[in-house]
Amino acid sequence: MTISYTAQQDVTRAIHPGVRLRQLLTQGTPAKIMGAHDGLSARIAADAGFDALWASGLCMSSVLGVRDSDEASWTDLLAVASRIVEATPLPVLVDGDTGYGNFNTARRFARQAERLGAAGICLEDKVFPKMNSFVGNNHKLAPVSEFCGKLRACRESLRDPSFVVVARTEALIAGLEISEALQRAEAYRQAGADAIFIHSRKSTVDEIADFVREWDDRLPVVICPTTYYRTPQQTYEEMGIGGVIWANQSMRAAVAAMREACRLMYAHGPTAVEETIASLAEVFELLAYDQLAKDEERYQL
Amino acid sequence: MTISYTAQQDVTRAIHPGVRLRQLLTQGTPAKIMGAHDGLSARIAADAGFDALWASGLCMSSVLGVRDSDEASWTDLLAVASRIVEATPLPVLVDGDTGYGNFNTARRFARQAERLGAAGICLEDKVFPKMNSFVGNNHKLAPVSEFCGKLRACRESLRDPSFVVVARTEALIAGLEISEALQRAEAYRQAGADAIFIHSRKSTVDEIADFVREWDDRLPVVICPTTYYRTPQQTYEEMGIGGVIWANQSMRAAVAAMREACRLMYAHGPTAVEETIASLAEVFELLAYDQLAKDEERYQL
Amino acid sequence: MTISYTAQQDVTRAIHPGVRLRQLLTQGTPAKIMGAHDGLSARIAADAGFDALWASGLCMSSVLGVRDSDEASWTDLLAVASRIVEATPLPVLVDGDTGYGNFNTARRFARQAERLGAAGICLEDKVFPKMNSFVGNNHKLAPVSEFCGKLRACRESLRDPSFVVVARTEALIAGLEISEALQRAEAYRQAGADAIFIHSRKSTVDEIADFVREWDDRLPVVICPTTYYRTPQQTYEEMGIGGVIWANQSMRAAVAAMREACRLMYAHGPTAVEETIASLAEVFELLAYDQLAKDEERYQL
Amino acid sequence: MTISYTAQQDVTRAIHPGVRLRQLLTQGTPAKIMGAHDGLSARIAADAGFDALWASGLCMSSVLGVRDSDEASWTDLLAVASRIVEATPLPVLVDGDTGYGNFNTARRFARQAERLGAAGICLEDKVFPKMNSFVGNNHKLAPVSEFCGKLRACRESLRDPSFVVVARTEALIAGLEISEALQRAEAYRQAGADAIFIHSRKSTVDEIADFVREWDDRLPVVICPTTYYRTPQQTYEEMGIGGVIWANQSMRAAVAAMREACRLMYAHGPTAVEETIASLAEVFELLAYDQLAKDEERYQL
Repeated sequence: MTISYTAQQDVTRAIHPGVRLRQLLTQGTPAKIMGAHDGLSARIAADAGFDALWASGLCMSSVLGVRDSDEASWTDLLAVASRIVEATPLPVLVDGDTGYGNFNTARRFARQAERLGAAGICLEDKVFPKMNSFVGNNHKLAPVSEFCGKLRACRESLRDPSFVVVARTEALIAGLEISEALQRAEAYRQAGADAIFIHSRKSTVDEIADFVREWDDRLPVVICPTTYYRTPQQTYEEMGIGGVIWANQSMRAAVAAMREACRLMYAHGPTAVEETIASLAEVFELLAYDQLAKDEERYQL
Repeated sequence: MTISYTAQQDVTRAIHPGVRLRQLLTQGTPAKIMGAHDGLSARIAADAGFDALWASGLCMSSVLGVRDSDEASWTDLLAVASRIVEATPLPVLVDGDTGYGNFNTARRFARQAERLGAAGICLEDKVFPKMNSFVGNNHKLAPVSEFCGKLRACRESLRDPSFVVVARTEALIAGLEISEALQRAEAYRQAGADAIFIHSRKSTVDEIADFVREWDDRLPVVICPTTYYRTPQQTYEEMGIGGVIWANQSMRAAVAAMREACRLMYAHGPTAVEETIASLAEVFELLAYDQLAKDEERYQL
Repeated sequence: MTISYTAQQDVTRAIHPGVRLRQLLTQGTPAKIMGAHDGLSARIAADAGFDALWASGLCMSSVLGVRDSDEASWTDLLAVASRIVEATPLPVLVDGDTGYGNFNTARRFARQAERLGAAGICLEDKVFPKMNSFVGNNHKLAPVSEFCGKLRACRESLRDPSFVVVARTEALIAGLEISEALQRAEAYRQAGADAIFIHSRKSTVDEIADFVREWDDRLPVVICPTTYYRTPQQTYEEMGIGGVIWANQSMRAAVAAMREACRLMYAHGPTAVEETIASLAEVFELLAYDQLAKDEERYQL
Repeated sequence: MTISYTAQQDVTRAIHPGVRLRQLLTQGTPAKIMGAHDGLSARIAADAGFDALWASGLCMSSVLGVRDSDEASWTDLLAVASRIVEATPLPVLVDGDTGYGNFNTARRFARQAERLGAAGICLEDKVFPKMNSFVGNNHKLAPVSEFCGKLRACRESLRDPSFVVVARTEALIAGLEISEALQRAEAYRQAGADAIFIHSRKSTVDEIADFVREWDDRLPVVICPTTYYRTPQQTYEEMGIGGVIWANQSMRAAVAAMREACRLMYAHGPTAVEETIASLAEVFELLAYDQLAKDEERYQL
């Protein structure tokens, strides 16, 4: 096994993460953005070759043991995001939910995300506290002007003009028309958003496709095919999507595996799982323990 | 699926976690202690029926994206342990490595672990900064008197006499004789340890068994069968082991699953994994999203 | 100098902080509650003889370098409050602002405050994000039913029935009538509040006195005489006040002194201040450095 | 009152803090570096005109309520330092004690300090856990090669070549000769240090002066006149000192003022102090509350 991201590290490190993320979202082929929820999942995603990471609110909340309904504070979430950023040289887009209050909390969140080395943040146009978009039917949108105020406040408080601010509209999640999504996206573009995240929980990509056609590439479009996962990858390229976020599959893979391992071990002990789980050597390789041994020789004379 | 720990919650909550852990370690049959590395893995372990949780230094470091060589500060590790404690009603034994410096840092760590609701801590008799016991051959032990000072300092700074202090000897890891392990264990017992963790990285349980025979139940014995995982569970019961820690298998299951999921998704998109990973509904059930919906009805009039 | 709280430590430690705070609020003479903003100011207040500490939102925000308008997250504030709790054996009432969102964030905050050893929390009936009560004239109150939901959610999620939940009404700050304050206080009492904090920014105690007369001791009353500081202490006792919070004077004393010291040192160097500032020996005594020296002898053999 | 640093903000922000600190240390006249222990003291120091800030280990530990003997973890200290960095545009030199373990913890600390926006760190050549230099007589130095390894590890793990690494020798504190201090300083220079911090606890500047003469400006020299505070400022300029750190006077001013305020208020209530403490308006001005009011108009339409 080779930790492939190490090879590209020198190249990537030299570029500001925001610049890198902008490149990826406008390169013509959809950026492959993998969800991560801690330093370990970040390493694994980087190792698999993904272009960028999504510090997912749902997944970060889940590993914190809480619900994706603003139960974790933005400080809690940024602490996890910080680990994700630190773990690999990939650019990280941090899920910022609704901005945790008003324009002021939103811009403070944005500034802290910038400080810790993220490539960008994504804010969504729901009301705080929000509920995960896949849960229930009570998704209230914030007034357009209020959300535009948040976007502008973030933009104007950030130091680095390359830091990416993605505006996510939950219009379709809230059961509204595509026209509403388009109007909101256009307002967010005018307020300074660098990309539009259009979210849907339909089982097909159709409403997203309609949106994208009308949107006509005014800004890069980011999508998150959780429910419409069956869509062929080729479709996204043809649609001209800027980035595809696989937000939570890595965590869901971990959940299934941990549950099965726990079940088997509780009943039969660890021999039942030893062959199917990663070896310790693999864990040590993933986290570059051998490099530390070399460093000890270098620095501990 | 039923979240089984919820059923037992009222009973367990009423008992101080230290009292509960003491009961488990002396109940005659080995306590089944599952390693956890975040709130999610803790929930999954509790749901599978385990008796207690081990907040593993290796696994917590791994999810933080760092090596198990004191790269994470004790504050970082306690923040993760805090999530593990909060996630379930099970008693949590927190891996305290060598105590992060001297008797003074060790007792501060112990006190903070107590404050956040852990059932106990485990300190090992290596030199700070330590390296994970499965890596390399440079495992230096601290002088016995120094380690006993740490144990006494912890004991005397803790508020709750039921809080468990486990002394872990790395004598066998350091390549020393069983007699050394026994002498150390006895010294640690006299210094106030509540249980002895005897660690080994042999592929069989033999040296542990020799230790346990000589030890003769002076205090409960805790073991961690990572390399000697093939030992039948029945053996531990016959040996009179107090607790068996399955320290890292849950994380290793997650690693294998996330790697495979990332590999498949990078190549083929998410249809390749959807059938094998946990559904979002399963994640929501694990974290009791439906309870929040009920609470909204109760508290949001 | 004697650190007087050390003497009373054994007595106080044995009592749960919530029980102690309840005693203080109902002892017949007003509890003297001093504002603290870090571990150091907590020690100083304890040393001066105060009964309890107020972990002030304004002061904790100020030392974090931010404004008292929910710019600090509740995690940030609890981290500071945790230091205040840890620094002395006095019971600590933690300012919880509006609860940081809804009933769910409020109860999570309450639970974490309980976990870290606070004696109680205080929630106020404004809208999140709030502004400090002494700033501006835009103080919007939350609907009574919403705030009552928060109080009930806190009460029901706390483990310890002695943990104190103080309900603070900002009705007078918002420019409403005393009758409104009374109606709200009664609703909060029925929702489970343990004490009522009636806040005013008038220069005299008159409107507070009117409130207290009508309230007729249905629950202990807590006040914070920042603007009406001229009121003689005897008055509060005659009014039957449960607790008087001197919320921010300690920080304001520090601000004045640090400004003067910085001004003088910038112009003239440290000789200009050496005589008026605390000696290092005094700092070391306050933090019990000599105890550490003794502990080294005890634990480092 | 004008918050003077705001005026210079645009200029300062544009320069990397490490570059700015290097300029200050080599500008010919000693940089005036004020100790800070939280966001508030940082603002006050910036407002008074100081060139840079020292995030003091002693003072940060004190406000955390613990002793300056590595009782706070490096994570705890960086959390405070982060607030100091965030509070003003001044470059911040962060006290890194001995590096908290070995070369590996030292470089992780350095990297995190860089990430949060500090201008540099200072490491001292004592053994971990260390005791404050003004306390007791048991100050053991680390072997030169070990400390050089730490310096090189820090240098090579930092991203930004302008980030400043100051090497502090405690040779004189440990009671060794000036020749030992000079040998160590030279070794640290060769290991990559950007400046030398020579510490003394004599009541005169004489041994420092001897050191500086011999050192002959091989690198900028930083000093901390706590005990030899009587030395005229002009002397430092004549000696060619790069930077003078007034490490703890601001905190000590706060301590004296808070003690007096607490004493008076406990005895007589707040009228006894109101005239001498800062007004709330002053606190609000210091933290720019009026700017938030303007921002509300700008972003909350």
